[in-house]
Formats: sequence, C-alpha cells, structure tokens
Amino acid sequence: MTEEGDFLERNMGPVEIAKRARLAARRLASVSSETKDLVLRKVADGIDAARDAILEANRADVLEARTTFEEISLSGSLLDRLVLDDVKLRAMAEGVRAVAALPDPSGVVLSRTLLDDGLVLEKVTCPIGVLAVIFESRPDAVTQIGSLALKSGNAAILKGGRESARSTAALLDVFAKALASFPEIPEGALSSVADRAEVDALLALDEHIDLVIPRGGYDLVRHVKAHTRIPVLGHAEGVCHVYVDRAADEAMATAIVLDSKLQYSAACNAAETLLVHRDAAARFLVPLLSRLIDAGVELRACEATRSLAPSVPLSAATEDDWRAEYGGPMLAVRIVDSLDEAVDHVNRYGSHHTEAIVTADAAAAEAFLGRVDAAGVFHNASTRFADGFRYGFGAEVGISTSRIHARGPVGLDGLVTYKYLLRGSGQIVATYSGENARPFQHRTLS
Amino acid sequence: MTEEGDFLERNMGPVEIAKRARLAARRLASVSSETKDLVLRKVADGIDAARDAILEANRADVLEARTTFEEISLSGSLLDRLVLDDVKLRAMAEGVRAVAALPDPSGVVLSRTLLDDGLVLEKVTCPIGVLAVIFESRPDAVTQIGSLALKSGNAAILKGGRESARSTAALLDVFAKALASFPEIPEGALSSVADRAEVDALLALDEHIDLVIPRGGYDLVRHVKAHTRIPVLGHAEGVCHVYVDRAADEAMATAIVLDSKLQYSAACNAAETLLVHRDAAARFLVPLLSRLIDAGVELRACEATRSLAPSVPLSAATEDDWRAEYGGPMLAVRIVDSLDEAVDHVNRYGSHHTEAIVTADAAAAEAFLGRVDAAGVFHNASTRFADGFRYGFGAEVGISTSRIHARGPVGLDGLVTYKYLLRGSGQIVATYSGENARPFQHRTLS
Repeated sequence: MTEEGDFLERNMGPVEIAKRARLAARRLASVSSETKDLVLRKVADGIDAARDAILEANRADVLEARTTFEEISLSGSLLDRLVLDDVKLRAMAEGVRAVAALPDPSGVVLSRTLLDDGLVLEKVTCPIGVLAVIFESRPDAVTQIGSLALKSGNAAILKGGRESARSTAALLDVFAKALASFPEIPEGALSSVADRAEVDALLALDEHIDLVIPRGGYDLVRHVKAHTRIPVLGHAEGVCHVYVDRAADEAMATAIVLDSKLQYSAACNAAETLLVHRDAAARFLVPLLSRLIDAGVELRACEATRSLAPSVPLSAATEDDWRAEYGGPMLAVRIVDSLDEAVDHVNRYGSHHTEAIVTADAAAAEAFLGRVDAAGVFHNASTRFADGFRYGFGAEVGISTSRIHARGPVGLDGLVTYKYLLRGSGQIVATYSGENARPFQHRTLS
Repeated sequence: MTEEGDFLERNMGPVEIAKRARLAARRLASVSSETKDLVLRKVADGIDAARDAILEANRADVLEARTTFEEISLSGSLLDRLVLDDVKLRAMAEGVRAVAALPDPSGVVLSRTLLDDGLVLEKVTCPIGVLAVIFESRPDAVTQIGSLALKSGNAAILKGGRESARSTAALLDVFAKALASFPEIPEGALSSVADRAEVDALLALDEHIDLVIPRGGYDLVRHVKAHTRIPVLGHAEGVCHVYVDRAADEAMATAIVLDSKLQYSAACNAAETLLVHRDAAARFLVPLLSRLIDAGVELRACEATRSLAPSVPLSAATEDDWRAEYGGPMLAVRIVDSLDEAVDHVNRYGSHHTEAIVTADAAAAEAFLGRVDAAGVFHNASTRFADGFRYGFGAEVGISTSRIHARGPVGLDGLVTYKYLLRGSGQIVATYSGENARPFQHRTLS
C-alpha cells in the first residue's frame, strides 16, 4: 500500500482488486499473531495521530450531507452516525487496541485424532480468505471491520457509504500507512472500492470473494442477499417476540417487555410483537399495556386484546403488523390460547433472530427453547441481550440469521473456517483397504 | 406418510413439498434421540424384509438402463452403481443400523457461559432444517442420506436419478412405512420429487430449503451450484496434488504417489498432478515415472520433465492439464524449482480439496501445511486418506470444498447448526447499560 499501490488501486477494477485480495489472503494466512497485533497497535496510534485530518474529512462529509439532506434523504439518525468527534475517535482507536488484545482466532486446534501410529489428523482454524464488507454511513465500521479482518488473517475489500466517503478515505489512509510499514503484510490485504456500481461487480465475484458482510439497514442487506451467490453474514430483519406465558410473573413480564421494546427501540433485537397467553392477559394485560403507553409506545392489537382492554387506546393490528419491524416505539400485541399457538406464531412470522418467553413454568420454558426456530431463544431475559459484547465475544462482526456457518451474534470465530492437517510417516490407503486391511485406531488426542 | 400422504405428495408441487418439509423440520427438531434411533432400526429391518420387492424394482431399472444404454449414455461405472444385489442390500441395512448407533449430533452443548448470576448462555447444536439432496444413479444414496437426515433431525427432500427411479421408490416406500408407524414423526419429514424440472424449482426455494447436497459427478454439482442461492455442501472438482519435496525419501515418495493416483483413480481425492522438486527429480524422477508407467498410468509432463527423462514415454502437458481432473489413470507431471513454486502451483490450479507434500524436512512440511489453501493438507501421507470414514467420522455426508460451514469430509456434524439458549431470572439490559451499569461476569462454565 505504497503511494504507487494507491495509484494502482484507483486504476484497478473490482476483478483486479478481488484477485489481488485473494493472493494477499494466502500470504496473510501465515503472518504471525504477534505481527498482526503490532500492526493493529500501529493503526490505533495512527488514528490518534491523524485526528485533525480525520475530523476535517469528516466535517466535509457532514457539511455535504447536511446541504444535500433532502436530496439524498439522509435521516437524522444516519447523520448522527456519520458525525465523528474527539470522543468517538478515541473510542475507535481503543476499539482497535481491544481487538489486538483478543486471542488470535486462527490456528486454534479444534480436534486431534490418532488415525494410526504416526498418523495424526488435526482440525485447525484458519482464515476464510477474502471478505467484502459493505456498510452505510458509519465511518467507525472501517476501523471495526478493518481490525477484525486483519486480526483473523482475512483480506478485506471495503465499500463505505457515499455520504462518508472522505471520512472513510482518511481512515483507510491510516490503515494503509500502518500496513505498509510491515513487509510481512501483503499489498491488497485491505482495499476499497468507491462506486456503487462496483459493489454489484464485487457481488458477482464468487470465485474470488468468500463472504460478504453487509452492515446497514434492511434495504442494503436485502439488496446484497438478492444479488450474490457468495455467502452473506448478516440479517435483513429483526422481527423478535416476547411471549408472556400463562405462568408469567407480572413484574418480571412487565420489566422484560419494556426493556425488550424500549431499551433501544431501533435495534434489530428489540421486540416487535408481544404475545400474551389468555390467562396471563386476564391477570395483568391492562396494566402491562398501560405501562407501555405511558412509556410512549404505540400499540397495534388483535381483536381479543381490544375486547379485553377497552380502556386502553389500541388500533387494530393487521396481518402486516405481525410481519413488521417497526424500528421504533411501536408494538404489535396478540393474545394466544396456548404455548403451541405462541410457538407457531413466532416460527411463522419471526425472522429467526431472537425470541423470548417469560414464564415460571420450567417445562413450558424448555418446550419454547426447543421448538422455536431462531438464532437465540431466551427464557426470562430481555431480547436485547442478543449481542456479541453481552455474550462475551469481545468483538462483534454482526448478527446472522442464516442457518449455515455462523448464527446469532458473531464474534471473531465467525471470520475463520478450518482445515484438516494430516501428518503421517509414509502411510498409504492400500494398507487400510481390502482383505488384510489394517484397522484404524481413531483415538481422540488431547 | 400414510397412503393418503403418498397420494397427496404425487399431487404436490415443489413449493408445497418444501413448505411441508419446513413444518416437519420444526417438529422433527424436538423428537428424541431414542425415537429417531427406533425409526432407523425399523427402516433397516424394513430393507431386509422388502428385499424381493427392492431387487425386482432394481432389475426393472437395470433392464431399462441397459436397453436405453446408448440413448442416455449411461457409462459402465454408473451401471455398476445402479445394480443392487443381496450383498449390497444387506450392507445398506447395516449402514442404517450403524447410523442409528452413532451419537445424536443435535442437542450437544458446545459452550456454556455465565453472563451474570442466574443468567446462563448455552450454545447448543440443532438441526439445520430442510435439506434437498440430489443424487445420480446410486440407489444406496437414498438409505445413506435418508438415515443421516433423520438422525440429525433434518427434513429431507430427495431427487434420485431417472435411471434409478424404481429402486429409489421402493426404498422410499420402506422409509415411508417405518416413519408412518411413529406418530412423533411428522408427515413430510422425508419426501421426494421425481422430475428433473422440479429440481430447478427446488433450487429456487431459498426461503424453504436450507442446504443442498448434490451427490454425483462434476456436471451435476456445477449445475446445482450455478442455479441456486441456497448453500451447497459438496465439491465439483477434485484436482489434488502430491508435491515431492527436495528432501523426500525415494521409497516413501514412490509409495505415496502410486497410492494417491491409483488406489482408486476415479475418486475425487486421487492425485491429478505430481509436482517434483528439481533436486528430488535429479535423484529419482526416472524410476518414479517408470513405476507409474508400469502401473498403467498415462503421463503428461512439463518440458523440464521431458528433458530429464528422455527415456520415458511422456506426452507434453498443456495449461489444460494443470486444471484437469482426469478421473482415471492419467497424471500430469511438473518439475518446480522451490517449495514456493509448488505452493503457488497448488493454490493456483488446485480445487482446494486435498494436497500432499512428501518430505523429511519438518520446516518445509509446516510451511506447506500453513500456506496451502485447501480443505485437507497432508504431510507424508496419501491424498486418498481424505474421507469421512478414514477420518473417523462414522458416516460421511460428502466432501466439501466450500470455505463456509462444513469443509473437507463432512460427518453428521455438517448437518447441524447451533442456537443460543439464554436462561435468565428476569434480567433486563438496562441494568447493564449507562452510568451505573452492572458488569457482566462472562465466566466459562464446564
């Protein structure tokens, strides 16, 4: 990533960038943990040192975003995410140092088996290869994903949002300088494309790119999923439920419902629909809904709920409400006759993200945990716990609702795969085949 | 799977079959290990009991295949795979019993973390959901995949080859009867489609199908990979290499090369290209190549090889040979100047399946193992060891060259994913946020 490298990159198309990333990934896979951590600390120091330049670039981005606000319909919260300041920059540098301090997810021996004397099979984690990361206005995605990719030994191709182009470029420059000062780090380990059109080109390169990570809203993720055969790590929707069972405690149910909906209502793990067992509804539906309304939540309710709580202002829920990710202080409410009905509703309308049951009945809880088809199923806890940091992963790559590869909140583990290493002393398969076949030992080693 | 069910299935389109499979998968996920194993033993007994009917159906398939041999260009080896006899049928029933005897891959606790007092996170394996399995003429794929899918709690939709239609139907009938005698097993747990057109319809159903497993030749796998967004477990090609390093022992190198090429030359893990370090070539290339020729191997060699071994009958290798999967007794041969050149050749032309180095130099071996980008990398052992049974997995679902999800030979583990179960006692995220945030404990439990 010398200046010449930068120049080349500006003149490279997506195919050339991806091919170079593949070659870089192969070299990066055998760079030592120590070197990778030194590079990351240099990146962190670089962010501190380049503070003025980064903030200046960011001010230009923000100015343009404000000017063209209506034209590009950049919402207020996107603008909040775009704005950098001293505090955010320090946090970004600390975030990179924290990634450096994590254990290397690559090179971990997952299992070791003695196939026969002098023939040992190891299953060892290794980087996946080439990641393409597509994110919207948050410039901190650059440092987060850049550091996680490098830590795990993957090459990464980044595409930031148009509105954060200058901030992204300033941060990438910090990375480029740090990477270039270590000869072990191959050119192309971290690269970027700037054009929206180049994203669609990248998404077609399933020969060269192994995993796509979209970080952004529903539209971005849907677009990515619909336009690529490359595996996607992410989730388009978070339609999460809290089911208040017949045997739920009123105070606990109220606290969990309020937290699941309101602790951060724009989050993907916030609840969108409240399911209440008819018996629990008879006991405390009115006070529960009143608490939600007092907290500023708009409710869309089924007919049974509206009959049971005529004093509460409720508009009628339609089929669309069961599928809605409101992304704000709205909640659909439905009364169900049984745990079975709750499970069926969750499996039918949910997005397989995070689902919770509140109940004092251990058998009901285990039935719900077993039968609900989602990345996270919780008993007596808020859906908002579905998060890599809360799970203790140290860093979060994203939350996946896919059933293949990584699922749920994904830590650094989601950026490695494994390979089998077999160390022998001249063994051939003919020895273990046919009439006088020598048997395998297949003994698990520690 | 009553008679009524069979009737319905014949009138159901792929979408209805897949939707029914999704519902079945959700119920199947909580069927006990004991029940699943009882069903499998009943299937095995059913195969024994229905021997006459299965063999009669198979004879009709074989007769038609022979009659229309030229028309459908069914090769001799495909015909061999199609033919069933008493011995093969007994082996199939024993195979199903062996799957029943394996540990249940679902419900295994992968990790357990205390997030805080009374708040425990478990990562637990669970079935993936709905599998679509597309196979060619081998009728034994029905019993193998059917039993592995059921064992792991997945619903499966099978599509056999046209040439084995009657044999497949007879075996599916055995499954249907066994499944129907257990009320816990939902209808649609195992279903099938018969038409080739329906395969393409299935491949489009990424909402309802979670994993596609093609079992067959290159054309089938390429077709499947090119026509679906559903993750595919399999490999299209096996372009495997043996690299004979500078420090290789002649006898060991000769034995490993012969075994890798000839122990079963049609296998995906057979070697297609031999790379030899110049120094080793100077020591024993001529006798090594002579041994291969004596064993009936046709060689395609680089210019350097042909100069060094003018006495050996070698045709010239072209660029196509480096990419070829011969699938028979042919081998490309190339002399390289260094380990680096060998690694580069393997990473460039290989299919990331299985690669071997023969050397007495431990440092060279570790460099090769670390830098070669493949599902299996072997030192001083034949490439033919890349196999689920030889690895000790008990059963093999297939061999995957994908970097995501399962890689290399895949056992029952490849048919499960995981979910996170969080068991709390009323915890909410607000407690762990903001100024007076309570810290997490994140303590690993045994």
